[in-house]
Amino acid sequence: MIRIEPVTGLGEIAPGDDLADLLRPRVAPAADTVLVVTQKIVSKAEDRYVDLHTVRPGATAIDLAERTRKDPRLVELVLAESSAVVRAAPNVLITRHRTGHVMANAGIDQSNIGAGGNDRVLLLPLDADTSAAALHDALGIPVVIADSFGRPWRYGTVNVAIGAAGLPSLVDQRGDEDRDGRTLQVTQVALADMIASAAGLAMGEASEGIPAAIVHGLAWHAVPRAASALVRPLEEDLFR
Amino acid sequence: MIRIEPVTGLGEIAPGDDLADLLRPRVAPAADTVLVVTQKIVSKAEDRYVDLHTVRPGATAIDLAERTRKDPRLVELVLAESSAVVRAAPNVLITRHRTGHVMANAGIDQSNIGAGGNDRVLLLPLDADTSAAALHDALGIPVVIADSFGRPWRYGTVNVAIGAAGLPSLVDQRGDEDRDGRTLQVTQVALADMIASAAGLAMGEASEGIPAAIVHGLAWHAVPRAASALVRPLEEDLFR
Repeated sequence: MIRIEPVTGLGEIAPGDDLADLLRPRVAPAADTVLVVTQKIVSKAEDRYVDLHTVRPGATAIDLAERTRKDPRLVELVLAESSAVVRAAPNVLITRHRTGHVMANAGIDQSNIGAGGNDRVLLLPLDADTSAAALHDALGIPVVIADSFGRPWRYGTVNVAIGAAGLPSLVDQRGDEDRDGRTLQVTQVALADMIASAAGLAMGEASEGIPAAIVHGLAWHAVPRAASALVRPLEEDLFR
Repeated sequence: MIRIEPVTGLGEIAPGDDLADLLRPRVAPAADTVLVVTQKIVSKAEDRYVDLHTVRPGATAIDLAERTRKDPRLVELVLAESSAVVRAAPNVLITRHRTGHVMANAGIDQSNIGAGGNDRVLLLPLDADTSAAALHDALGIPVVIADSFGRPWRYGTVNVAIGAAGLPSLVDQRGDEDRDGRTLQVTQVALADMIASAAGLAMGEASEGIPAAIVHGLAWHAVPRAASALVRPLEEDLFR
């Protein structure tokens, strides 16, 4: 039996807030339990806000902004946060983020980021795996940092893990036998992504603003691996 | 609070088995509850087995089998089940299935399909949305049929919905305001895919063979939409 419990009552997170201190009274470490927190509250606590008025777009950003019909200052930030542009088209800018994750607009967020108007944006944490490890160390519970991603061939976003600590983000089943004794062909399961999506059901729609959830009843037989293990390297990218 | 309960004790599913009859004693319909079943037991009950010895690969399949290093008979079946080849490379054959879903090998499965040796394979249900609708009608509970898919830029599979009935596979948030009164930019959530992934946590790894799960505690405010609503049409496919 899996149970997913929303974590509420954290209040609005501000730069400098200690998320571990805020979460500690709401989290009881247990062997089968994972804490899932949204990228958004981690970014807020880490003060990853940028005021677009302070951004000077370069020539590349201006050109790309025209192709994508986006704010050139936003595009400048996306480029600064990314190692490669995967796809640019009207209203679409998909890049490989510095950390390797492929997503729209380098994960930069203009919604639910508190006061400051539409000119203040929120970047992803500097390194969500490092942020997850700090929370794991402080709270003694495995941690997933979740963000919502679109997908190339499917409508709608799902939650995925951009940071993880204390659990195996990827469970390798290579060579395991199935129940009939044949070798399994599907070999790796993205456990942290499935946990992120499951937690999304308890965190509800964006307007509810539930920033974290606790997933109970999990079990795994694999060594911990950060969310970086989920990143398929560029040379194996079949879709470029 | 979300609860995900594994459904066990169904035994090995055989062609002709009535899944609704088998599931009925294990499912109590409730307003906030969804039944998730694996594609595999639906395909077995619908006798979607094919013996590869009966398959004569054509010239296209033989050529594609060489490029992908796959069994030409399997490739023939993949092509028969698909409307387009998305990507072919050594050990990789990704197609758009007849139903629109993009996946490896048209979802044809050689593992955990019971006796018959490696030459017997299992195709997807003819139309998983129709199969889900039949279960929904018979059991009076919303139904998701789940399969595990790989992703282009991430390692590992996650569960997604290839069939759904009685719930909104896709929840449209276009125009909703976020808590700060700005219009949300992320507009659609793939609810059925998130439910499929959540259920995957309770169904565990392939060797355990848990074929279904019940997800309690869900809520939505949208009209039911089949899993076909999750299919992004080819003309919007940004990655071809």
